[in-house]
Amino acid sequence: MQLSRPTILAMDLEGVLVPEVWIAVAERTGIEKLRLTTRDVADYDQLMRGRLALLRDHGLGLPDIQEVIAEMHPLPGAVEFVRKVRAIPNLQLIILSDTYYEFAAPLMAQIDWPVLFCNSLETDAGGNIVDYHLRQPDGKRHSVRAFVGLNFFVIAVGDSYNDTTMLAEAHVGILFRPSTNVRREFPQFPVVDEYAALEARIAAALEQSA
Amino acid sequence: MQLSRPTILAMDLEGVLVPEVWIAVAERTGIEKLRLTTRDVADYDQLMRGRLALLRDHGLGLPDIQEVIAEMHPLPGAVEFVRKVRAIPNLQLIILSDTYYEFAAPLMAQIDWPVLFCNSLETDAGGNIVDYHLRQPDGKRHSVRAFVGLNFFVIAVGDSYNDTTMLAEAHVGILFRPSTNVRREFPQFPVVDEYAALEARIAAALEQSA
Repeated sequence: MQLSRPTILAMDLEGVLVPEVWIAVAERTGIEKLRLTTRDVADYDQLMRGRLALLRDHGLGLPDIQEVIAEMHPLPGAVEFVRKVRAIPNLQLIILSDTYYEFAAPLMAQIDWPVLFCNSLETDAGGNIVDYHLRQPDGKRHSVRAFVGLNFFVIAVGDSYNDTTMLAEAHVGILFRPSTNVRREFPQFPVVDEYAALEARIAAALEQSA
Repeated sequence: MQLSRPTILAMDLEGVLVPEVWIAVAERTGIEKLRLTTRDVADYDQLMRGRLALLRDHGLGLPDIQEVIAEMHPLPGAVEFVRKVRAIPNLQLIILSDTYYEFAAPLMAQIDWPVLFCNSLETDAGGNIVDYHLRQPDGKRHSVRAFVGLNFFVIAVGDSYNDTTMLAEAHVGILFRPSTNVRREFPQFPVVDEYAALEARIAAALEQSA
């Protein structure tokens, strides 16, 4: 008997399909302090307020940042990977990210607008980013839990600390190019470093789900 | 201040983006009894078992039905509509349907594989459809409720009785080309009959959500 269980592939964005956005913005604008991440500043709110202040101090509004991001490209192989997995009939790709729709748009256009669950920015009439709005705390984990509640088989793929709760919540969790720390601290998740290996892992998980 | 609230556009499939699949299969195979719908047979399980028995009696397996469905096309204007709404950065299109992944695939390929939440079929080694599996009862409504729980603003679009519970559950519910009965029985939902008017309704709902 052949039965394919309805499956959601929940994937992180930055580091998995596209480069880290803030690092690219730091490089392209020359504002070194934009390189700081949650590894350097533990409090996310403090980190984001610092970033928004830096942009304001340098006179950079949302359109300027969007121009910088528009010069970025998906990671080599990501476009083909996304195209392939989307064409698996019972596998639905949903990207779960802590980024913002306003930042992600130029990159989403390059991978043909997959579904993205993330957060939003607030701008003033002059295009300055005045605030950020998280859709909900620990959004990735909540999304995976909701998919499981809708009776989907869920495969989650990510690279960072902030992905590990969704990997744990999913039926199958896979680390893609994680840092040495994440790799060491979460030995329960298999690690892959190339899209071909990730495809093979996903195919194996689909077999297992049937 | 400009703030776009993260939004999900939950759309029905048959009658809204593509033709009714069973009616097309009835027409193309000449099996008139496949035209029966839930309007004729109230019990869905009885209806589906009847359909599967008819296919078996006529020696039609899943590959035969898929060939028939592959000759179908999205409704005129649907491809352009889907392309447009997917390119709205903070709007995520998710199709909620009572169809089966195995039937929908040839049509999904033609609208570039949007995310689809539906059901699955079970086949034997000879390709005969031996059973069907609903992911969950009243799946459309449960999905919309889950999206609301993830703090999305939800716009739902459908045409039939089986869409009205998700339309009620969403922040904004819109009927697209409903039957006269549905139109009359659910006066609380606005009705549109063209994609351009639907786009305008969606734009107005996005304004309202901000």
